[in-house]
Amino acid sequence: MILFAHGARDVRWAEPFERLRARVQARRPDLAVALAYLEHMAPDLADAVRALADQGVTRVRVVPLFFGRGGHLREDFPQHVARARAAAPGVSIDVAPAAGEDPAVIEALADFALADMA
Amino acid sequence: MILFAHGARDVRWAEPFERLRARVQARRPDLAVALAYLEHMAPDLADAVRALADQGVTRVRVVPLFFGRGGHLREDFPQHVARARAAAPGVSIDVAPAAGEDPAVIEALADFALADMA
Repeated sequence: MILFAHGARDVRWAEPFERLRARVQARRPDLAVALAYLEHMAPDLADAVRALADQGVTRVRVVPLFFGRGGHLREDFPQHVARARAAAPGVSIDVAPAAGEDPAVIEALADFALADMA
Repeated sequence: MILFAHGARDVRWAEPFERLRARVQARRPDLAVALAYLEHMAPDLADAVRALADQGVTRVRVVPLFFGRGGHLREDFPQHVARARAAAPGVSIDVAPAAGEDPAVIEALADFALADMA
C-alpha cells in the first residue's frame, strides 16, 4: 500500500502522515506500507512503486490522502498513477477514492472540530 | 466556529469541506459554523471573523483543517489569526489544534486506507 500525500518544503510537514503510515503498518504487519508525495518530498509515486516492485510486490493499492477535490486530485494524481504504471509495468496498481470522499473521515473531522465545545 | 482550510483555484476543491461544515452545523444548530481559506478562496479568516462579529458573535473557535505540519500551519496560520484579531478586536478567538494532530482523525484515516483490504 502506498499512502500518497501532497508534500511540502518543511520536512516536519510529513509527521502526521508518518504517524498514519506507522498506524496502518501496525494494523497490517503483513502489508508493505509506504508513503509517496506529489511534490517537494521523496519518493514520488513512481519511485515508491518501483521500490515495492523490487521487494517482489505485484499489487499496490494507492490511497490518495487529499481532502479537497481540486486540480491535484483531478489532474495531477491520475498523471502520477499513469507514470507509476509505466515505470513498473509488472505491478498492478489499484487506486482508492480520496480521503475527503469518505463519510467516516468527515465524521471524525466533525468530532474533532466539536471536541470540548460547551 | 470557523473551519479554516487551504483553498484552491478549482471551486470544486471545497466540496468536502462544505460537506464537513454542513455536518458540524447539523450537529450543533445553535452555533454559527463558517468556512474560511488561507488562499485562492474567499472569505479569508479576517473577513469570516468580521462577518460573525456583524451577526453579534463575540467568541470564535478556529479549527485548522491542515494535516501536514509545515509552513502553512506553523507560519501562515498564526499570521492570519493575528490579522483576524486586529480586524475584529471585539471577538475572542480561540485556536484549536490542527486536524492532523488528532489521534481519532488519524485512526479514521487508517480505517479508510484499509477499507476493503483482503
